Amino acid sequence: MVAVKTFLTEDEIPRQWYNIQADLPDPLQPPLGPDGNPITPDALAPVFPMNLIEQEVSTERWIDIPAGVLEVYNLWRPTPLYRALALEKYLGTPARIYYKNEGVSPPGSHKPNTAVAQAYYNKEFGIKRLTTETGAGQWGSALGFACAMYGLECRVYMVRISFDQKPFRRLMMQTWGAECVASPSTETSFGRKILEEMPDTPGSLGISISEAIEAAVTDQSGQTRYSLGSVLNHVLLHQTIVGLETKKQLQKIGEKKVDVVIACAGGGSNFAGLAFPFILDKINGAEMEIYPVEPTACPTMTRAPFVYDHGDTATMTPLLPMHSLGHTFIPPPIHAGGLRYHGMAPLVSQCIIENLITPRSYHQLECYKSAVLWARTEGFISAPETAHALACTIDEANKAKEEGKEKVIIMNWSGHGLMDLLGYDSYFSDKLHDYVLPDDELNNGLKALESFPKPAKMVRGKQVP
Amino acid sequence: MVAVKTFLTEDEIPRQWYNIQADLPDPLQPPLGPDGNPITPDALAPVFPMNLIEQEVSTERWIDIPAGVLEVYNLWRPTPLYRALALEKYLGTPARIYYKNEGVSPPGSHKPNTAVAQAYYNKEFGIKRLTTETGAGQWGSALGFACAMYGLECRVYMVRISFDQKPFRRLMMQTWGAECVASPSTETSFGRKILEEMPDTPGSLGISISEAIEAAVTDQSGQTRYSLGSVLNHVLLHQTIVGLETKKQLQKIGEKKVDVVIACAGGGSNFAGLAFPFILDKINGAEMEIYPVEPTACPTMTRAPFVYDHGDTATMTPLLPMHSLGHTFIPPPIHAGGLRYHGMAPLVSQCIIENLITPRSYHQLECYKSAVLWARTEGFISAPETAHALACTIDEANKAKEEGKEKVIIMNWSGHGLMDLLGYDSYFSDKLHDYVLPDDELNNGLKALESFPKPAKMVRGKQVP
Repeated sequence: MVAVKTFLTEDEIPRQWYNIQADLPDPLQPPLGPDGNPITPDALAPVFPMNLIEQEVSTERWIDIPAGVLEVYNLWRPTPLYRALALEKYLGTPARIYYKNEGVSPPGSHKPNTAVAQAYYNKEFGIKRLTTETGAGQWGSALGFACAMYGLECRVYMVRISFDQKPFRRLMMQTWGAECVASPSTETSFGRKILEEMPDTPGSLGISISEAIEAAVTDQSGQTRYSLGSVLNHVLLHQTIVGLETKKQLQKIGEKKVDVVIACAGGGSNFAGLAFPFILDKINGAEMEIYPVEPTACPTMTRAPFVYDHGDTATMTPLLPMHSLGHTFIPPPIHAGGLRYHGMAPLVSQCIIENLITPRSYHQLECYKSAVLWARTEGFISAPETAHALACTIDEANKAKEEGKEKVIIMNWSGHGLMDLLGYDSYFSDKLHDYVLPDDELNNGLKALESFPKPAKMVRGKQVP
Repeated sequence: MVAVKTFLTEDEIPRQWYNIQADLPDPLQPPLGPDGNPITPDALAPVFPMNLIEQEVSTERWIDIPAGVLEVYNLWRPTPLYRALALEKYLGTPARIYYKNEGVSPPGSHKPNTAVAQAYYNKEFGIKRLTTETGAGQWGSALGFACAMYGLECRVYMVRISFDQKPFRRLMMQTWGAECVASPSTETSFGRKILEEMPDTPGSLGISISEAIEAAVTDQSGQTRYSLGSVLNHVLLHQTIVGLETKKQLQKIGEKKVDVVIACAGGGSNFAGLAFPFILDKINGAEMEIYPVEPTACPTMTRAPFVYDHGDTATMTPLLPMHSLGHTFIPPPIHAGGLRYHGMAPLVSQCIIENLITPRSYHQLECYKSAVLWARTEGFISAPETAHALACTIDEANKAKEEGKEKVIIMNWSGHGLMDLLGYDSYFSDKLHDYVLPDDELNNGLKALESFPKPAKMVRGKQVP
């Protein structure tokens, strides 16, 4: 019998993360401060510990994973690489479909790959308390788990509407000892200001980020820092353990050539985790298609320009060079909360303009249809974000069938959907809609960026229009 | 570094289940029909397929696991055996604590070990549709998953109050294509009768069992059968894959002697799954302590007598020889729904009267306290049922510390608690109570059994009082 699962032992886990900054044909353009000039690492010191800031700007290709991180990774890593035999059979495809099961972590997603690393480095730096924001709760629960593992305090500002509607995520955080507060809260001056102006606001990720950063930088003890779950270089770096394990597992079962790599992308860290080690092969001449997948309702990669924009709605962060719908953009209420971010990680954006990867977008109805087929063949119930990768995988498997080609397709199954079943409920009750963003709404979001500096589009060292 | 997880490859999975009926010092006493006489296998034919009835009465020691079952087991089995290094360190115990992680299955618990086997055998027998009942929803979702894997229809009668309060479990079933209806329903004559008498009833497991059996036996096509998630011999048989894998994994890491085996027990299948293969060693002379753990609020094993009683409240099932609080017993509203059953599997009950195992009971506050400690050390959030095994494990680890003994403790981590977080909410908000069952309430439950035949208590071939 062909094995469904390929494991690595804990001894075989990769000992280094892969830093794609060492290999990009063109370097990242720098983040800019409020004055329009590149910011220095020191400027970030009140927000992040210096060891993570060093990772953020490093161009070393391989960065050692500390033993203290591996010790916690061992609770669920290396994760199994699955062969989707039942789905292949159902589709009648000649493709061999592999998926990396990141749902086996205690919080149930890929997020702890960086949460654990960030908690470790903060602890090493002498930090006692982390703050962060969370929307639907995936990231907040991952950081809560990670902080419990290292004995750090953790305070999560959760968007009020999610705080009220999704008590389970909050309870996960509480079980791990994290404090989860509805945002806007009365704990920060920004939160109090918002509450005064809009006492009934449902909150937003932008407000929550602002509160979390304020809480970190205003703590007089100097022992509090802020933690972000995606977008930044060091976050994507930590996720590369996913792709590096996958390569070892493929080698173990004798798969020599990968044809297609697929992962969903919101802020970009899940996609980068699987794809960056494969992009290295592509840079070195391997032929393969690499697809980051986003919702049609929030088409950051497929319809938005490459610009300088803020990472948050309240414009507290530096300007980052990225594909962005504009920091004021409010996406339609699709269920894949993790894919409703206005921007895309600078490193992923750079891969797009370098033509190393090819963004795709899918409607949510097709994503849920794919997720239901997946559950009834492969057994596992997928997160709504993950469902975007499933839709693309099924398309590619059908394409291989049409072409009669034995392709190898690799997909990042970023997490289970057991905390997100209300989306399935809406799907079964025909309450879900597909959204196509009207051009004028897209343009409205971009208006706020008109006065910002423009990044140069560099491809192979040359500026392109 | 000591490995946290020990895996088996799919090639190494045990190829046979272990049937303890071959080795019990005294044979099981037979189930009795309404006339007080032993029932024949034929009498069960309208309810179960004959291939499962044969397993129910078999005394063969080893029963082959069909390739068609192994194929689906491969989606999550063999499950990892974990070493609880972080908990050991926290407790400062010299004990080595191992736990079998059954939470990695698609529905998140041990239940699919038998659900998959039952769906397979029904399919082989030509059955098209299974019916079952579910309380909190663990079993119903496991059977829904299993039926999806074999293309069987599945109808789950879910206790109405749970149906209304726990939409997530129902949505899991629906995602796998199972129909889940609130019970009592208008679909069965028993359901209609109850609704007429008590239109506002919250329902009960007894009512749901009755509806599920009625729906199976009254289907004129003859292609519907009923499926039960615990208690019966063949259900416990299928679960022994857990203990058999554990033994292989211990051998792999060189652990020669097991001192303590611990698992929670509601109907008994989770406990039997881990423990029965170890009880075989005990029967053959090995020294070890084996603890099935139940809630103090529903003390079936620790305070109830060994009697003949019905498996359901509506007295539709045969009389089974077991420890029972009486089929009319209504346990206090503790959160561990899977441990609120009035009886205990005949095979587990027999092991108790043979003194092969030693039942323990725990209060729910201590269980939640243990589960929170577990989450903050071992990372995973446990089901409230599983928390009972955790409380006992922590006690035994502390005992080993007091005695200064390097004991090996094995525990069945039967499932994650991500669908059961409301219990943690009650715990954190100080809304949970401990319950000690008053003697008169215990005696009330037993009154209904006074007219029933009494089983002989046989120990080593001799009757005991």
